[in-house]
Amino acid sequence: MNPISNDTAWLDCIKWDADGLVPAIAQDVHTQRVLMVAWMNREALRLTAEEGRGIYWSRSRQKLWRKGEESGHVQVLHELRLDCDADVIILMVEQLGGIACHTGRQSCFYRVWKDGQWQVVDPVLKHPEQIYEHKHE
Amino acid sequence: MNPISNDTAWLDCIKWDADGLVPAIAQDVHTQRVLMVAWMNREALRLTAEEGRGIYWSRSRQKLWRKGEESGHVQVLHELRLDCDADVIILMVEQLGGIACHTGRQSCFYRVWKDGQWQVVDPVLKHPEQIYEHKHE
Repeated sequence: MNPISNDTAWLDCIKWDADGLVPAIAQDVHTQRVLMVAWMNREALRLTAEEGRGIYWSRSRQKLWRKGEESGHVQVLHELRLDCDADVIILMVEQLGGIACHTGRQSCFYRVWKDGQWQVVDPVLKHPEQIYEHKHE
Repeated sequence: MNPISNDTAWLDCIKWDADGLVPAIAQDVHTQRVLMVAWMNREALRLTAEEGRGIYWSRSRQKLWRKGEESGHVQVLHELRLDCDADVIILMVEQLGGIACHTGRQSCFYRVWKDGQWQVVDPVLKHPEQIYEHKHE
């Protein structure tokens, strides 16, 4: 990514919700597949641009979440996009390990609506126990 | 789409937020481009599956929004996907008119972060005045 300006106008123009968050979509830069959706606060977005990797705000843990810090499945940032309402971010990323989902699948969106049910259509590439025994920090 | 079952288990398993909503991503079934993100309540999701088109909940207008009802830019549904947390939906759609954004662009995500700024990189395909003078209802 480019050097970061001290000018924070690009952060000020985001329409953060009542909790100071916006949804962030991680999309695979090679296949265009949507990998996951997480949330960002101002600091997470600033650090994502600064460090060139996907960094989110974990609502359940109420702390910054450097995607891949435990799994090694880091998201290398290629591009950031913003929508017309300035309240959703897209990260175009290279997904290291080819796995974005904590279930061990490529994408979190592995269920398809069919015959009135959500049906699992994507395989588990690596079992979660194997992913999370390999802690990076 | 398939005939709808009377069984509403597939709706019950969605983790609606405090306002009864979830984010819904419309993605182009041909190019995989993310076109827009809107919100759905339970009725919007049920009707989307039932009518086979993108139907959302407008938070600003507090009513159902059949995408394309004014612009003609209907989203024909090809597939619905759900994420691991059951709190985000993807609609794979054919975007009629090739324009999803109210600004007249293909996608709402027409700004890219570059040199510390959000820069517009996508062209306006049709001016909004032309889009919205052609009302379908």
